Amino acid sequence: MARVYNFSAGPAVLPEEVLKEAAAEMLDYKGSGQSVMEMSHRSKVYDNIIKEAEADLRDLLNIPDNYKVLFLQGGASQFFAEVPMNLMKNKKAAYIITGQWAKKAYQEAKIYGDAIAVASSEDKTYSYIPDCSDLDIPEDADYVYICENNTIYGTKYKKLPNTKGHILVSDVSSCFLSEPMDVTKYGVVYGGVQKNIGPAGVVIAIIREDLITDDVLPGTPTMLKWKTQADADSLYNTPPCYNIYICGKVFKWIKKMGGLSAMKEHNEKKAKILYDFLDESKLFNGTVVKEDRSLMNVPFVTGDKELDAKFVEEATKAGFVNLKGHRTVGGMRASIYNAMPIEGVEKLVEFMKKFEKENTK
Amino acid sequence: MARVYNFSAGPAVLPEEVLKEAAAEMLDYKGSGQSVMEMSHRSKVYDNIIKEAEADLRDLLNIPDNYKVLFLQGGASQFFAEVPMNLMKNKKAAYIITGQWAKKAYQEAKIYGDAIAVASSEDKTYSYIPDCSDLDIPEDADYVYICENNTIYGTKYKKLPNTKGHILVSDVSSCFLSEPMDVTKYGVVYGGVQKNIGPAGVVIAIIREDLITDDVLPGTPTMLKWKTQADADSLYNTPPCYNIYICGKVFKWIKKMGGLSAMKEHNEKKAKILYDFLDESKLFNGTVVKEDRSLMNVPFVTGDKELDAKFVEEATKAGFVNLKGHRTVGGMRASIYNAMPIEGVEKLVEFMKKFEKENTK
Repeated sequence: MARVYNFSAGPAVLPEEVLKEAAAEMLDYKGSGQSVMEMSHRSKVYDNIIKEAEADLRDLLNIPDNYKVLFLQGGASQFFAEVPMNLMKNKKAAYIITGQWAKKAYQEAKIYGDAIAVASSEDKTYSYIPDCSDLDIPEDADYVYICENNTIYGTKYKKLPNTKGHILVSDVSSCFLSEPMDVTKYGVVYGGVQKNIGPAGVVIAIIREDLITDDVLPGTPTMLKWKTQADADSLYNTPPCYNIYICGKVFKWIKKMGGLSAMKEHNEKKAKILYDFLDESKLFNGTVVKEDRSLMNVPFVTGDKELDAKFVEEATKAGFVNLKGHRTVGGMRASIYNAMPIEGVEKLVEFMKKFEKENTK
Repeated sequence: MARVYNFSAGPAVLPEEVLKEAAAEMLDYKGSGQSVMEMSHRSKVYDNIIKEAEADLRDLLNIPDNYKVLFLQGGASQFFAEVPMNLMKNKKAAYIITGQWAKKAYQEAKIYGDAIAVASSEDKTYSYIPDCSDLDIPEDADYVYICENNTIYGTKYKKLPNTKGHILVSDVSSCFLSEPMDVTKYGVVYGGVQKNIGPAGVVIAIIREDLITDDVLPGTPTMLKWKTQADADSLYNTPPCYNIYICGKVFKWIKKMGGLSAMKEHNEKKAKILYDFLDESKLFNGTVVKEDRSLMNVPFVTGDKELDAKFVEEATKAGFVNLKGHRTVGGMRASIYNAMPIEGVEKLVEFMKKFEKENTK
């Protein structure tokens, strides 16, 4: 079978050229006589791989020297606990609830202290980003937490919240490297890589140095203390070596494509094709208020469950896969991450037009 | 360059046939049109991969139905915290210290309760396994903890400790699937996969069902509570999908090779070649007492640091890589896991003989 157009929310499509390189190097990485899977993480050859990955990421995001880059494990779900364990000195934090993942992070933080929901869009199935210009953030809150792009609901912050001087912690899993970002605005930026960057099994965290200390909550496991990994350059124990290697290849691919500004342009172009069609379609409707639409995840519905199911089925047969929406939104969702070519979105819209013609009177 | 003979302690050599298959399937796994790296972990095609991996592992180890198999993240180092967090109801546990990893597990447990070192071989640089037939284990200890094969020091328990009715928890990272084991003798068996099974980034834990409960220590992160992953069949959040897929291929390779009895025979044969030579050599000496020798990790020294360094250098040039010993033992270490062919050990011994001839008067 040919390669499909894969609209999965994550794990998700990767650049074909990265996969081809990985396949070619599988038995012998650059004359080392070994697969990257087989290399000691203490070897010089692997050390170059992880160091180069970090350097390329720093380059792409223009990460200042006073921020550490950590390659971690456990997914965002584990990081939900790491945030309070490492930052909740006053046992108080403000959470903005814009979807399931923000809510899970908030619930996890409640294990460790007073997590306060200072805003939420749950009232309308998270179809918008609340106004965050003047939130009631307690003076002694240790941080303000957001999920910047909401994979399930298809929303994204177009403007960061006014944290009133508090540290901003942001989960960027589903918009990581999709456009430029100003790292200096954050205390902690982190994300699972399995959407825009690489194979599941790595969390990349970019953390301002002064937030990495020994002063963590009692009972914090050594591995969940950021200082452990920061002091060891992410090599305290064996990291997910192969996964990091693939992430490194994706960083190089993004650089080759022109960096994050070019990536943003590419993503805006793709999103426009799909949103423009949704706005004119008589059958399909987007579910998100226009000003908060994500460039990465585009949920849409027909309003008829049976028709939604028929669409997903026929699309799958035509080679457009993983279009079924999350059960809390229903309908469909097209995730159009960096590696989704424009052609994929164009062909999807063509297919949707054809489906619309066949299924409206 | 041709493939080298890779004696790395981990990550380590994998079966060439597994790597070839993975390379061939990189862009299109069995007609799915996707790489396994790109697949939704909730898709049917991936569900088959993880289910089949578990079934094959159960088959290989003859795992009884009342044991759960979990695919986790964070390495053994993270599991060091998970053990007390999930099992220390009485806040007391007995640790047998046979090397650096057992000691780290013991130190981590001290964060959570009264971890007691009931035996140790630290007095002789962990070159033997202490007598564990009649240890002073507190009645109310929650478990007895061992590291069954000591990667750095090259020792292995040939007989499990007498736990006096207590639950046995065993880190089998560096002897996982190297020979048959009776799972029913353990409460918890676990190991990082990056030595004998697959690419770093997965910990496999085999846990007796009654030990998986909601009754964990206060402050245990949701992701570190075994019940979270047990209830979700290791799919509570996105698992390290690709890594598990490679592990599954290695399980199938072991089955094809004849299962764990055949693997044991294969490993005994390889170890005998190397140990027999060490026992007769006038230049090289093994560092471990004979009765506790590991089949997987074979440390040896010449007694002369400069000569050790010269050996490692010349061996590397000849295509025998990663032979440098751990700094706490010095000298050399050959890790000869399942995927190391007999030929690799034979050729290493040939090379050692030649080196001995050239370097003794």
